[in-house]
Amino acid sequence: MTTQDARMPVSVQPVSTDKPVSAEPSVAPEKREPGWHKGYLTGTRPDIQVPVRQVHLTTGRDVTLYDTSGPYTDPNVTTDVRRGLAPLRENWIIGRGDTEEYSGRPVRPEDDGIKHTSPRGGLRNLDAVFPGRPRIPRRGRDGQAVTQLAYARRGDITPEMEYIAIRENVSPEVVREEIAAGRAVMPMNVNHPEIEPMIIGKRFLVKVNANIGNSAVTSSIEEEVDKMTWATKWGADTVMDLSTGRNIHTTREWVLRNSPVPIGTVPLYQALEKVDGKAEELTWEVYKDTVIEQAEQGVDYMTVHAGVLLRYVPMTARRKTGIVSRGGSIMAAWCLAHHKESFLYENFEELCDILASYDVTYSLGDGLRPGSIADANDEAQFAELRTLGELNTIAKRHNVQTMIEGPGHVPMHKIKENIDLQQEICEEAPFYTLGPLTTDVAPAYDHITSGIGAAMIAWWGTAMLCYVTPKEHLGLPNRDDVKTGVITYKIAAHAADLAKGHPGAQDWDDALSDARFEFRWEDQFNLAMDPDTARDFHDETLPADGAKTAHFCSMCGPKFCSMKISQDIRKEHGGDLLLDPEAGMRQKSEEFAASGNRVYLPLAD
Amino acid sequence: MTTQDARMPVSVQPVSTDKPVSAEPSVAPEKREPGWHKGYLTGTRPDIQVPVRQVHLTTGRDVTLYDTSGPYTDPNVTTDVRRGLAPLRENWIIGRGDTEEYSGRPVRPEDDGIKHTSPRGGLRNLDAVFPGRPRIPRRGRDGQAVTQLAYARRGDITPEMEYIAIRENVSPEVVREEIAAGRAVMPMNVNHPEIEPMIIGKRFLVKVNANIGNSAVTSSIEEEVDKMTWATKWGADTVMDLSTGRNIHTTREWVLRNSPVPIGTVPLYQALEKVDGKAEELTWEVYKDTVIEQAEQGVDYMTVHAGVLLRYVPMTARRKTGIVSRGGSIMAAWCLAHHKESFLYENFEELCDILASYDVTYSLGDGLRPGSIADANDEAQFAELRTLGELNTIAKRHNVQTMIEGPGHVPMHKIKENIDLQQEICEEAPFYTLGPLTTDVAPAYDHITSGIGAAMIAWWGTAMLCYVTPKEHLGLPNRDDVKTGVITYKIAAHAADLAKGHPGAQDWDDALSDARFEFRWEDQFNLAMDPDTARDFHDETLPADGAKTAHFCSMCGPKFCSMKISQDIRKEHGGDLLLDPEAGMRQKSEEFAASGNRVYLPLAD
Repeated sequence: MTTQDARMPVSVQPVSTDKPVSAEPSVAPEKREPGWHKGYLTGTRPDIQVPVRQVHLTTGRDVTLYDTSGPYTDPNVTTDVRRGLAPLRENWIIGRGDTEEYSGRPVRPEDDGIKHTSPRGGLRNLDAVFPGRPRIPRRGRDGQAVTQLAYARRGDITPEMEYIAIRENVSPEVVREEIAAGRAVMPMNVNHPEIEPMIIGKRFLVKVNANIGNSAVTSSIEEEVDKMTWATKWGADTVMDLSTGRNIHTTREWVLRNSPVPIGTVPLYQALEKVDGKAEELTWEVYKDTVIEQAEQGVDYMTVHAGVLLRYVPMTARRKTGIVSRGGSIMAAWCLAHHKESFLYENFEELCDILASYDVTYSLGDGLRPGSIADANDEAQFAELRTLGELNTIAKRHNVQTMIEGPGHVPMHKIKENIDLQQEICEEAPFYTLGPLTTDVAPAYDHITSGIGAAMIAWWGTAMLCYVTPKEHLGLPNRDDVKTGVITYKIAAHAADLAKGHPGAQDWDDALSDARFEFRWEDQFNLAMDPDTARDFHDETLPADGAKTAHFCSMCGPKFCSMKISQDIRKEHGGDLLLDPEAGMRQKSEEFAASGNRVYLPLAD
Repeated sequence: MTTQDARMPVSVQPVSTDKPVSAEPSVAPEKREPGWHKGYLTGTRPDIQVPVRQVHLTTGRDVTLYDTSGPYTDPNVTTDVRRGLAPLRENWIIGRGDTEEYSGRPVRPEDDGIKHTSPRGGLRNLDAVFPGRPRIPRRGRDGQAVTQLAYARRGDITPEMEYIAIRENVSPEVVREEIAAGRAVMPMNVNHPEIEPMIIGKRFLVKVNANIGNSAVTSSIEEEVDKMTWATKWGADTVMDLSTGRNIHTTREWVLRNSPVPIGTVPLYQALEKVDGKAEELTWEVYKDTVIEQAEQGVDYMTVHAGVLLRYVPMTARRKTGIVSRGGSIMAAWCLAHHKESFLYENFEELCDILASYDVTYSLGDGLRPGSIADANDEAQFAELRTLGELNTIAKRHNVQTMIEGPGHVPMHKIKENIDLQQEICEEAPFYTLGPLTTDVAPAYDHITSGIGAAMIAWWGTAMLCYVTPKEHLGLPNRDDVKTGVITYKIAAHAADLAKGHPGAQDWDDALSDARFEFRWEDQFNLAMDPDTARDFHDETLPADGAKTAHFCSMCGPKFCSMKISQDIRKEHGGDLLLDPEAGMRQKSEEFAASGNRVYLPLAD
């Protein structure tokens, strides 16, 4: 991947044109092409450059949309996955003077799943080692919390907060307040300076996470990096690397160095690989070593299943589908094998101190989430949620940013209870849910069964949605599945932004509906969440260029196009309808009859 | 299409095994194949044979599901689209003795859009004329109402009502009561004896309509018949034929004679063709003639846009997308051209008498529904709804079964007001909505933007959902689009059945989740809404036959399969967990450790 195609479509969210801080986007008007262009909004300091997608309408107007695609869609930036992205946050991190570089933990063959017992010996696959500039890890000086939560609490507005304020079209103080209150998180490890800051919280645009990750059965490093850039191109706000096979460490390094969005992981997966998959051999030491390894690489948030307590496991015995969280089942197996309380729960305060010194955000995992409609909102699920509430309070005391994971499989009438209870128990910490799936009966369509639940729970306050692809329950997603999953979830997120009345959210819909009513087909395509597919579908039946300006489509044909008839009515009667409906109509009725009463035109070609 | 493949998958809805009336399904156990089989439940008389889909699980248990696919999926029935389906309702209709055959309206060339001015002259395309047995139309003797509503009101339980009671797993008296109260409709023209009776009402399973129809731009008779059987195969409960091009009459004849589900139309479309597309030349006479033509053919329900009143048209002038209903825009153009009140509104009582004498059900059209988020729930939309409420009362007075159409484009937070207001204004008449779409920004994904709204509004009481395909706003749907649209809407409908707590609805989810937890992959596929795609997706990464019994899939691989781990936990600790959690765990913890603590097995092959 080198210079990117400027016309590469990206999925987007709306930004109102009332910019709180910044000047005009940095693209000179004469350089604007039809379609869209990558632009930047500048903050109070020149190195705050917030990316946006500028859609150029044929009317001459621009529509500014949120952009997650990173430098890959900027024709002025040359990217190279072997070098990684520019560390745009580096000066801000160094400038704060509260972190230090240190030698770090040596990388070991077993970090990539290569054991001394391996037939290939102790050597790592050196070809795959990330070839970019050498990195020295960084952490809080003297173990202090270098988190955005700590800064917000002491009243600082960081460059990251200002960046987000511009991106979300709110004031920097709102960002600071929401972070300080724990109602929002900005996942951004000091060792991941490449990311474009973003925020997850109910007062901001709803975000979408896409999962990638190789498994023992399939996929490679290159595919995972490509899946990440592909997912962010279509609008993923964060990406979780859930790799479980070989080369976990190296894959993650490639992904992090090339990712413009926060990367999340579940450290338990790699820890389990280090003990040959034997859950009962897991120890706090192996786990802690893995967390530090990943924190030094720059992982921005980590799922920690510290709420699966020994006494909750029997609550799952009568369930239809038991424990369906991988992390949850591993911890349950450990607790039962040792008949001891979870080492994650027992060592939670120490873990907080580690995360605080890198600004890794907690994603407190719901290891006992329901895996079927029958198990939704049961005793096990809500018992764990109450423990996550306790852990949230402890994490905040250590200045660790924290969000809470949620289900799962939940029928529609039981969804609201999930977000209401979570918000109450967890002091409004951001909720991060997987769907939920509203029925179990449609494998191969679980992006849809879950997109329904996702839109609803986001409307009611969930801050981030973890996508589900059509392959859920069946296999590993390919590129098409990733795209379908991301777009389905961007729809759910945007529908929720509308329902929440997020400022400016409807501008996007209005611009597209204006284009639709005025038969500006190219504008309609360029404003669409997926311009390529919208254009392809239209062209399938009406491929001729003339059809792009036709006042109808193949759905109804020219005679039955209601928008055409409606537009003609307005043209004939419009002014009078607006000024004096009754009088105007009577007069225009006669004129309309005199003009031949044609409410539609013949087919253009 | 001749004898159908018995393994053809159909989309389904659950029927509890507590049958209120009937005996066992009529398939001998020894004839059961793996997979599923078409079965029938018999009523109090032998000619009441209600089709069901019997899914045979590998455990030996059967799961009985609702089946819309008609005789096409019965290997014991030979079907032939040139002969049409057997008239299974004929004896019931004749037996009531309240209808008579009559000579009927002669079919004219212009019924198929062939004018004397046509270059092809006045001859119809005789090759296309439906070749099945000659039909003589039937209507109520002496113009009396021969509607299920009239029967229900006088306390009769018709064979059709009993059929539905078995199909919906309720008592026949519940069916009669709901029909009598106008809270449900059973669309079934006396001239469409081929259909398998079904019901649309909020106390029953949520239904899905699929639209088909040629337009001036594309498609043929054969394609439309094929689209109908294809849609019902995947679960469409009714089909609307919205053809607007040539051969409208003949296409409809083929569709009706081969359709096991009710067929709906918008007679205005054909009426407009008869006046060369000039809306202002429409008259009550042309319209009435078209309604009688279609009623004689057997159309089961008709969309009538009688609520678009002259005084409402100016209310659309300030809208973002004007009038987006085809029928609505045609009637608005007519009203403005003549500056007169709608001929549909003015002649509504006469229209009621016509519909009553065939038992055609009204679908009162929402000609002023919103076509964009900006226009949702506006003055024009709700003004028309109030008029539909008046018309509903008039229709009921004439014993005409009536449902009410609803939007459209509505953001999530404005959806509930639509169903609540409709139920209040229209005395709980069934609501039949198009989506609604919850955002405007995703053309090519409007099955999803609308599937979200459809699930929600159905949960809150909408009785039937009109599907939206991925091609909405862009072009005419092909076979894949029809399938995607139907399945998306079956998901929305079933999610709503679950949320409403419909008796037995969750049995389907439970059966599938049991299969999932127990790694019965074949059962999982056979129970899926789309068995083919579920199987294909699974096989894409794990095609080997061994993988069909493997205790994992390619998503997580064997080590990380939570269900596997969870199952192992239950196997090791299960009995004790259930009986005495604390004591059992302690004891089993030691046994588990002694046995090697393995929570998963190595990869099978």
